[in-house]
Amino acid sequence: MLTSQIVVYSQHGEPADVLSTHSYEIDDSHIGDNEIIVKTLAAPVNPSDINQIQGVYPSKPEKTTNFGTVEASAPCGNEGLFEIIKVGSKVTDFSIGDWAIPAQVNFGTWRTHALANDSEFLKIPNPSQSKANGKSTGLTINQGATISVNPPTALLMLTHYVKLIPGKDWFIQNGGNSAVGKYAIQISKLLGFNSLSVIRDRPNLQELKDELTSLGATKVITEEENGSKEFGPTIKGWTKETGGEIKLALNCVGGKNSTGVARKLANNGLMLTYGGMSFQPVILPTSLHIFKNITSAGFWVTQLLKQNPELKVETLNQIVEWYEDEKLIDAPSLQTKFDPNGDKPLHELYQEAVINSKQGKQLITF
Amino acid sequence: MLTSQIVVYSQHGEPADVLSTHSYEIDDSHIGDNEIIVKTLAAPVNPSDINQIQGVYPSKPEKTTNFGTVEASAPCGNEGLFEIIKVGSKVTDFSIGDWAIPAQVNFGTWRTHALANDSEFLKIPNPSQSKANGKSTGLTINQGATISVNPPTALLMLTHYVKLIPGKDWFIQNGGNSAVGKYAIQISKLLGFNSLSVIRDRPNLQELKDELTSLGATKVITEEENGSKEFGPTIKGWTKETGGEIKLALNCVGGKNSTGVARKLANNGLMLTYGGMSFQPVILPTSLHIFKNITSAGFWVTQLLKQNPELKVETLNQIVEWYEDEKLIDAPSLQTKFDPNGDKPLHELYQEAVINSKQGKQLITF
Repeated sequence: MLTSQIVVYSQHGEPADVLSTHSYEIDDSHIGDNEIIVKTLAAPVNPSDINQIQGVYPSKPEKTTNFGTVEASAPCGNEGLFEIIKVGSKVTDFSIGDWAIPAQVNFGTWRTHALANDSEFLKIPNPSQSKANGKSTGLTINQGATISVNPPTALLMLTHYVKLIPGKDWFIQNGGNSAVGKYAIQISKLLGFNSLSVIRDRPNLQELKDELTSLGATKVITEEENGSKEFGPTIKGWTKETGGEIKLALNCVGGKNSTGVARKLANNGLMLTYGGMSFQPVILPTSLHIFKNITSAGFWVTQLLKQNPELKVETLNQIVEWYEDEKLIDAPSLQTKFDPNGDKPLHELYQEAVINSKQGKQLITF
Repeated sequence: MLTSQIVVYSQHGEPADVLSTHSYEIDDSHIGDNEIIVKTLAAPVNPSDINQIQGVYPSKPEKTTNFGTVEASAPCGNEGLFEIIKVGSKVTDFSIGDWAIPAQVNFGTWRTHALANDSEFLKIPNPSQSKANGKSTGLTINQGATISVNPPTALLMLTHYVKLIPGKDWFIQNGGNSAVGKYAIQISKLLGFNSLSVIRDRPNLQELKDELTSLGATKVITEEENGSKEFGPTIKGWTKETGGEIKLALNCVGGKNSTGVARKLANNGLMLTYGGMSFQPVILPTSLHIFKNITSAGFWVTQLLKQNPELKVETLNQIVEWYEDEKLIDAPSLQTKFDPNGDKPLHELYQEAVINSKQGKQLITF
């Protein structure tokens, strides 16, 4: 028997109030033909994990007594990296030692182990497999554990809707300093697109500009510059130089800032909203809609990839390849290791991580 | 020789300040093989005509000295009904007595006559042709003179983007009492779609509700009802009853009102903005974009039909047929007749009509 620990909640509320750790036994001597047992290598805290626990996120796991809880409970966490430790007799996609990530959200990744059907996981290469495959390096734990949300969000927003012409066309984004923003900068560079990233003015502005430029940013400007009439011709000069247009805007801020990036779009441009950090709605002048034919749409990686499982595999393969080729730098996490024999139960570790999320992305390793 | 009078402006500004009437001769004894001469039957004042003169409309006629003005001048008016009074030797699409409308905007319809290439006009049946074709009635002057903008706007918004299922699906619109709103109500009824029209509360509310219902409205509600949580289940009950969804929203108001209609859309719904009567931008909560996959786009009949000349013909044919079959009621105009021998020059008549536009659509007949 194998003891698994899992973080669950039976009532929605603040993570500090409603999380608990539940232990249950997995019978690893008898597993189904198509079943696998995985052990968790690492699972991060994403904003959507917190919103699910609070009950304010539209996609959430079912509450269940399958883990043996008295009250029906839902598992926490959506993203994570796992290692296969046992496979059923008819499992062909996985071998012991393989790395895998959940195929769908709502799996419940804040746990030590899981018994699952093999179809619930997608394989990604572990470092020795990457090296055996001639790659100079393999994925890090952080790369594997954070590969499902932010990098696909950036890649798909840049490629799935608008056809940007490499070497010519541009996209504009606000929140250029966000995790997705940095992936978008790097991926656009890899794909040959020009990026125009808008960031807030700050004391260490040049430092941040330099960082984004070193990631591959074509141009980085402040919100003030983006909003200023005087600066408009400078931007027009940049697009003229490449012979392209700003055909796509990525918005994770909202409010006046969303108006600002939408205004820079060429006729028939698309703005994709994937976040609302300012808690303000998207604001679009009527004239942009009618006379410039600007369209404003939403992007939710969860829903898109749920509807397109093949697209998920294709997208992940591309990101894996860029990581293996050291062409893509992952957003760093603040890592804390769980000690199964220590005093602190797993849910307390995640409760602390939720609080610490304001300082940066938190990753619990196992 | 035929004397044509045309309303022009050489400088942008308020119509009261910048319009003048220019007279010039058309040599009707020698016209080109593919040319036609038309006389104007009626030409209305549209808001876009006024905005063109003010210089705040993105589509505008070129200034030219072709009419013989000293200064380069632009003609006014975009919509109008004309009668063919002379045809060149190689003209096959038109005969004398035919009715026609300009094929494109910016033709300059505020005038008494025009010499044009036959490709600049589209034929619509005159009343005797409709009757000869077995129809019970022909188009009125008002129907012909106002057929190019509002009815196609309503028809195309309802059919060109989202596939509504007849008998089941719904669209929601604000400005249900506007000219386009009333066409949308009637046309949706003709096509079998359910309509939910949102109107401002007012003293004679029931009277307006009755009017819209008699035009074919499925449901008419006030802005307050649309914004109220308590009223939500009533609307859900209506859509449940038909087994359909609200897949399309038409917005001509903007601001909070645009948010209100967008909130009523089913997942994956589309809001089309074709006007901004409140002078407020379109406001869309981030969650509607991301989690309900609501898309917000613009509609501009001018641009759409410029890019799709065949769609224009097809759309106009459908509207003509509905008028001939008395299935569609046109928005009434306040009509004023121009007297070419009177004291009041044509531009003064239009200047008055611009001012009177606040009381209702103005149509100058000839």
